[in-house]
Amino acid sequence: MALPRLALVPGEPAGIGPELCVRVAQAPRTDCSLVALADPEVLAAAAAALGLPLNLLPADAVARQPGDLPLHPVRNAVAVQFGRPDPRNARAVVDALLGAAEGCVRGVYQGMVTGPVQKSTINEGGIAYTGTTELLAGHAGREVVMMLANDIVRVALATTHLPLRKVADAIDAPLLRQVLGILHSAMREDFGIADPVVAVLGLNPHAGEDGHLGREELDVVIPVLEALRAEGMHLVGPLPADTAFLPGRLRGFDAVLAMYHDQGLPVLKYSGFERAVNLTLGLPYPRVAVDHGTALDLAGKGLADPSSLEAAVTTCARMAAQRMQR
Amino acid sequence: MALPRLALVPGEPAGIGPELCVRVAQAPRTDCSLVALADPEVLAAAAAALGLPLNLLPADAVARQPGDLPLHPVRNAVAVQFGRPDPRNARAVVDALLGAAEGCVRGVYQGMVTGPVQKSTINEGGIAYTGTTELLAGHAGREVVMMLANDIVRVALATTHLPLRKVADAIDAPLLRQVLGILHSAMREDFGIADPVVAVLGLNPHAGEDGHLGREELDVVIPVLEALRAEGMHLVGPLPADTAFLPGRLRGFDAVLAMYHDQGLPVLKYSGFERAVNLTLGLPYPRVAVDHGTALDLAGKGLADPSSLEAAVTTCARMAAQRMQR
Repeated sequence: MALPRLALVPGEPAGIGPELCVRVAQAPRTDCSLVALADPEVLAAAAAALGLPLNLLPADAVARQPGDLPLHPVRNAVAVQFGRPDPRNARAVVDALLGAAEGCVRGVYQGMVTGPVQKSTINEGGIAYTGTTELLAGHAGREVVMMLANDIVRVALATTHLPLRKVADAIDAPLLRQVLGILHSAMREDFGIADPVVAVLGLNPHAGEDGHLGREELDVVIPVLEALRAEGMHLVGPLPADTAFLPGRLRGFDAVLAMYHDQGLPVLKYSGFERAVNLTLGLPYPRVAVDHGTALDLAGKGLADPSSLEAAVTTCARMAAQRMQR
Repeated sequence: MALPRLALVPGEPAGIGPELCVRVAQAPRTDCSLVALADPEVLAAAAAALGLPLNLLPADAVARQPGDLPLHPVRNAVAVQFGRPDPRNARAVVDALLGAAEGCVRGVYQGMVTGPVQKSTINEGGIAYTGTTELLAGHAGREVVMMLANDIVRVALATTHLPLRKVADAIDAPLLRQVLGILHSAMREDFGIADPVVAVLGLNPHAGEDGHLGREELDVVIPVLEALRAEGMHLVGPLPADTAFLPGRLRGFDAVLAMYHDQGLPVLKYSGFERAVNLTLGLPYPRVAVDHGTALDLAGKGLADPSSLEAAVTTCARMAAQRMQR
């Protein structure tokens, strides 16, 4: 079987993304081939700063030696200084992401791996942008679900970057049905789990304690879960968030659906931040991102830990291969 | 120095509390002396079920051998069947808690350790009761703070058992000042930490991201933290909840203040449920409870894990000794 080809997008060029891509290109891969969508000068500068070999190849070439990296060039507007993002390069950052997305949709790539972006710099560059997840969802015209994962647990979020006071009203039956539908399909299609077990957290502490601590479980969550169980989904819950994450219980779940950001992510990050990745479920292709920021203070110094990008490539390769088998 | 005397209250007699007390009485203690406030028949039944020695002694006696347990009797109204809570015994459950509280306030005991209670059974017994924390706060006429702790992290809660949609409005400046004041005093007086470092989480995801994801950090949390720093408190934050709990960061904090239940407790329970305890800060005495329920299905079978009660006794003894040194 042919290996999946994955688009590799470094993200903010002044951050640690370029050097992480250079590091990932140092080891020959047996699970995928990578094609960087990036500015060749930035990658070369990152390699020079790290003292690592880098041989940029044509996009359709095959990497054979440490440092080989096929490249589809996306050039920056101005030269990059590591640690100092320049809004004039925002367009190139977004173009690389959209180029990768377009390539994925057209079948040139079988998945996309992305480094960290600097949201504020993109906005300062005059581009309306709320996040790469949203950008890719808009490009594909799909509803998506954000999932964070490490070796211990996969946590999907019913709501993401919403002020806490807006969360309760945002959790309604149509949203929950949609999110659980996307999550369930992704567990089957991207992870190859025929009958995934998904734990669903309650919105309220103790999952509402039979209505004593909030009625959303009784009025919204439980009816949706019962309807979806009748359609064949294996759903557990609504569970109290604090006890759902006990290690012994976690091992029985293929994924956990948290109702909001801070309910689900602290355990995920505590239990294995270095190897954590950020997945966008529901796109026509697998997309996996690093679960860390641009670390501007570290950029160009060779200090950045490539574990998350390495995990993102490995995860995306596995998901792409799973889709190619179908 | 004399050892602290701690009141030991098993909680719901039909649950695992009595057998946990019997287990804890099997090992001679060098950090405290324990006095059970309980029904002697229930303790004897639990010991018989477990096949363990139990010698109930007068309340002012000293335990010398495995199974010795000084007892202040608080008799149940009806005989107990393990696994089947009886509302007619609710009065005895509450009386034991209040007797221990009264003894603590009057200096008979230097602290209180409590097993799990069955809230619904107490309510069915016709007693208005929302939780032992609230009962003890009312008895002492004090505002209190709930804190959960294990060997990894101490998590205090600004709000506890509140529906999620009420949390944002509940977090105001007077509450935060009060909670941080109680927490700071407790870290000094109960834990002997002269200049405690307390991490304060934001209410919103990413701690509001400069107002983009909610304004409560800017309008409420940050001004309170600045005012309290000016009064000499060492406060870090407001921090995003997901990254505050990274293991490397946690090691720098003496306690973490979470804004609500499900923001703080999943990591606490994930990182060490067995040894987790529940503390009530702000009382005139240390009070430590187990961090688990009555486990009715296990009661009387000898299967219950005494780690949390053991940790509660150890923690309470240390806190009581700290207060006795002052």
